Amino acid sequence: AATFRASEHQHIRYNPLQDEWVLVSAHRMKRPWQGQVEPQLLKTVPRHDPLNPLCPGATRANGEVNPHYDGTFLFDNDFPALQPDAPDPGPSDHPLFRAEAARGVCKVMCFHPWSDVTLPLMSVPEIRAVIDAWASVTEDLGAQYPWVQIFENKGAMMGCSNPHPHCQVWASSFLPDIAQREERSQQSYHSQHGEPLLLEYGRQELLKKERLVLSSEHWLVLVPFWAVWPFQTLLLPRRHVRRLPELTPAERDDLASIMKKLLTKYDNLFETSFPYSMGWHGAPMGLKTGATYDHWQLHAHYYPPLLRSATVRKFMVGYEMLAQAQRDLTPEQVRAQGILGLHRPFHLI
Amino acid sequence: AATFRASEHQHIRYNPLQDEWVLVSAHRMKRPWQGQVEPQLLKTVPRHDPLNPLCPGATRANGEVNPHYDGTFLFDNDFPALQPDAPDPGPSDHPLFRAEAARGVCKVMCFHPWSDVTLPLMSVPEIRAVIDAWASVTEDLGAQYPWVQIFENKGAMMGCSNPHPHCQVWASSFLPDIAQREERSQQSYHSQHGEPLLLEYGRQELLKKERLVLSSEHWLVLVPFWAVWPFQTLLLPRRHVRRLPELTPAERDDLASIMKKLLTKYDNLFETSFPYSMGWHGAPMGLKTGATYDHWQLHAHYYPPLLRSATVRKFMVGYEMLAQAQRDLTPEQVRAQGILGLHRPFHLI
Ligand SMILES: O=P(O)(O)O[C@H]1O[C@H](CO)[C@@H](O)[C@H](O)[C@H]1O
Ligand SMILES: O=P(O)(O)O[C@H]1O[C@H](CO)[C@@H](O)[C@H](O)[C@H]1O
Repeated sequence: AATFRASEHQHIRYNPLQDEWVLVSAHRMKRPWQGQVEPQLLKTVPRHDPLNPLCPGATRANGEVNPHYDGTFLFDNDFPALQPDAPDPGPSDHPLFRAEAARGVCKVMCFHPWSDVTLPLMSVPEIRAVIDAWASVTEDLGAQYPWVQIFENKGAMMGCSNPHPHCQVWASSFLPDIAQREERSQQSYHSQHGEPLLLEYGRQELLKKERLVLSSEHWLVLVPFWAVWPFQTLLLPRRHVRRLPELTPAERDDLASIMKKLLTKYDNLFETSFPYSMGWHGAPMGLKTGATYDHWQLHAHYYPPLLRSATVRKFMVGYEMLAQAQRDLTPEQVRAQGILGLHRPFHLI
Repeated sequence: AATFRASEHQHIRYNPLQDEWVLVSAHRMKRPWQGQVEPQLLKTVPRHDPLNPLCPGATRANGEVNPHYDGTFLFDNDFPALQPDAPDPGPSDHPLFRAEAARGVCKVMCFHPWSDVTLPLMSVPEIRAVIDAWASVTEDLGAQYPWVQIFENKGAMMGCSNPHPHCQVWASSFLPDIAQREERSQQSYHSQHGEPLLLEYGRQELLKKERLVLSSEHWLVLVPFWAVWPFQTLLLPRRHVRRLPELTPAERDDLASIMKKLLTKYDNLFETSFPYSMGWHGAPMGLKTGATYDHWQLHAHYYPPLLRSATVRKFMVGYEMLAQAQRDLTPEQVRAQGILGLHRPFHLI
């Protein structure tokens, strides 16, 4: 029998954080691609567009006029998926038909007054201001809601409908599915091994170095062993931190700088303003008495869709939707040939 | 407090088959869409293209020449994600780094010799031939592998790279993630209630009628209570059937006819050759001694991405990737205004 080589031989890997498996078939990168090609980003984005509802001074859908903000700017989403006061669907009449109440708040956060800068084009102090705004919105909404999901959809390919640099914050009265999975896994790892899953995981990756993309005094960026998206990364603090608001000023500065490095690498990989969805996961907030959430470790997931070039993406369809996630190159290959290298963020033309 | 109305008030619903939740925020359909618009299908597909490796008589990537087939045609995928003989990655040195062996086979099945017909354009006997081919490939590969995943990616939007009507079959030595979830849920429902989950579910939907799209002597098509994709449907036999090969000739004929109706409705909804990923789930195959899999009910899932028109899709990004699935119209609205009204399948121009 041949000796196993991950880059030659398909295998499955386990994601202990979200309790899922991925099929890794690296040899499949050899197949030709004749499918859909994404439109290239050709539009010039003007620095200021008075008709863009995210710009300083612009009028939004609800008639409100934005202030002439010069840093970050947080406001209520005009088309929220979650509102504070929805009534309860009431008890179910059958175990197969279960609905429950959902309450919450959806906000939008502009990162910068200019529409033509993305995070990697912003200065480290400007990114630091975004991090501070993330920490305080987590604290504010967390006083009322157990889960505060901060996420950024970057690029039209990722459903982003406005080029102005921004993220969203959806706070909910329930723990969303993926939060529940991470809660269960971290809880059970902690009770078995006496320490947080992701703290030990980061330490191991720092030793192994095979999947480490960036490290700094306080942070690690790695392609997780169980990554699903081709160039997926995980951003982790090196010490035990449960939530964004706990980060020290030094950790926030360092985070701004490592984010700028990571996103610049991403932009350089295919010489494009790299699309992705990213988001922060931290310990649940709110009032659950006695819960210390010591098993939680703060982290951010980056899920970028591109596979081969600025216009050829990985489709998570068919087998992936019906059976199991599948990837075409190993996390170790990404680290070795992938996102190391060049150093200039890509300008929206 | 206001009375709860699903079409006005956000809520969460539980998927008892896959143990997942979805956030339903129907009021959100009111928001304007300024994001990415999908390219319209403008290409003429020739009935026969000697350079298309899926056509009768064409030469494939491995040099083999296709027969001049006149019905369905099954062959090995030239770029398989699963191969029969990969070596084992061996034992893991750490609980957070778990990899396991994966073996299998990937096949491609052409539905018809002509490239310009999709399933809804085929005759009922031609679709019946596809169903027979599905049943026999399940039986053949199931003799060796516990899971045989039949799936179709239709449309460039769903990563389909060849317009010739075809599906894929990936058989694996492991139960994929979603199969495991369905196995667990059906097993536990059966042991609690003494009958298969989906058999009872179909019966309830037939009584309620709120989400029923089509019914025939042997089959039901409904928008599941917990649907995630806007126009998602579930196709179910009315009697207890565990796997495709168990279907009687009458059930197969009836299936061909209800599939033609469903796919014609889909094509008519936005007057386009409707894109989707679909796939069959049946009881695990293979040699597990004593297992009767009486808790399993055969079914097909249809996951179509379109939301508002032939060119505006639902993006499952950001919140959906990081927290929980979210939908913008209720399953009952789909049933009421959506995919009713049979007309004419849409021809690839
Ligand atoms: O095998 P194909 O059709 O080239 O590839 C397509 O279907 C596969 C199975 O769902 C996916 O893994 C690929 O991402 C998709 O592009
Ligand atoms: O709110 P937006 O940016 O218009 O919408 C985008 O992000 C949302 C949250 O991930 C998704 O539900 C939408 O499908 C997507 O288009």
